[in-house]
Amino acid sequence: MDLWEAISGRRSVRDFLPDPVSEDELRHLLEALAWAPSPLNQQPWSVVAITDPAQKKAIRQVAEEARALVLSLGGPSWVGKYSPAFLEQAPLLLAVIYDPAKGGLGINFNQPHGALAATAAGVQNLLLAAHALGLGGVWFTFFDPARMRPVLGVPEWLELAGIVCLGRPAKPSPVLPRKPVTVHRQRMA
Amino acid sequence: MDLWEAISGRRSVRDFLPDPVSEDELRHLLEALAWAPSPLNQQPWSVVAITDPAQKKAIRQVAEEARALVLSLGGPSWVGKYSPAFLEQAPLLLAVIYDPAKGGLGINFNQPHGALAATAAGVQNLLLAAHALGLGGVWFTFFDPARMRPVLGVPEWLELAGIVCLGRPAKPSPVLPRKPVTVHRQRMA
Repeated sequence: MDLWEAISGRRSVRDFLPDPVSEDELRHLLEALAWAPSPLNQQPWSVVAITDPAQKKAIRQVAEEARALVLSLGGPSWVGKYSPAFLEQAPLLLAVIYDPAKGGLGINFNQPHGALAATAAGVQNLLLAAHALGLGGVWFTFFDPARMRPVLGVPEWLELAGIVCLGRPAKPSPVLPRKPVTVHRQRMA
Repeated sequence: MDLWEAISGRRSVRDFLPDPVSEDELRHLLEALAWAPSPLNQQPWSVVAITDPAQKKAIRQVAEEARALVLSLGGPSWVGKYSPAFLEQAPLLLAVIYDPAKGGLGINFNQPHGALAATAAGVQNLLLAAHALGLGGVWFTFFDPARMRPVLGVPEWLELAGIVCLGRPAKPSPVLPRKPVTVHRQRMA
């Protein structure tokens, strides 16, 4: 697939067919992730691949808790109708983990940010590669990482960049409009 | 350019020809950035485009300070030889800014992370699009954001995801080897 077609044609997909993601597809997606740049080439990422229905259900439960918390705090009303059912429906969930210590030399300033940024660049590579394979995905982050951590068995020294839900799209996803990027010249103010 | 060629062929470029990046190229790069997914489609990013030599010099000065600090704290010896001269040599620097409040609904947990992750996904789109245009770039983060902030005029409620140095590569860049991504099944432990 052409790069521009992938960049501009990728959508966030939340409705999936039951067809599994193959091991070959998974390998390809992870190779795409690994081509991302990272500070000092430290490659701070790893993944948890989840296909077990009971495990997906436990993950969804943590997402439902976050939704209930935001509603109880007066969050927007659409949150009441929003359903993270795709966490159980997607044939494959990839929890993307990073090591905040592998973010370059800026130990006194932005090292954890460097590790998250590199991992996020890798997730974008993965989502583009998924689109080119005819797969779709959504990068899900609407949960409390402290609550998700025990479900995924993530040790305290690692962090969670999100859960990527993957599978074949059941229907076309809407195009969300983009604003032109604001450009300041030389400096912001 | 083919997506896979872009993903696997992109390199971090630190040696640039003096040819400027055109306004058309800049528009295309920012459109690529804007196609990244973001929580609630909040598009938390903006950029500062820097071509002024005096401004580049001030940016390099902040990078040199970070280098000196890491050396004084006993950082690795190669840091002493490392030169961020590309901050002055690159025809275009794009300081990528994000609004940490535009990271979705997870206000009690990972909202700032959501905004950085989305912006980092956008930077990866931009780097892939640059490669397809025959440009090269490096995503530079080895500086103290608190020191860079006044140089760029970034207000206190916004954050800096890095400075992307862009231009036409002066020579081929080395391929940094990648490790296979570690995959845990169902959970980490």
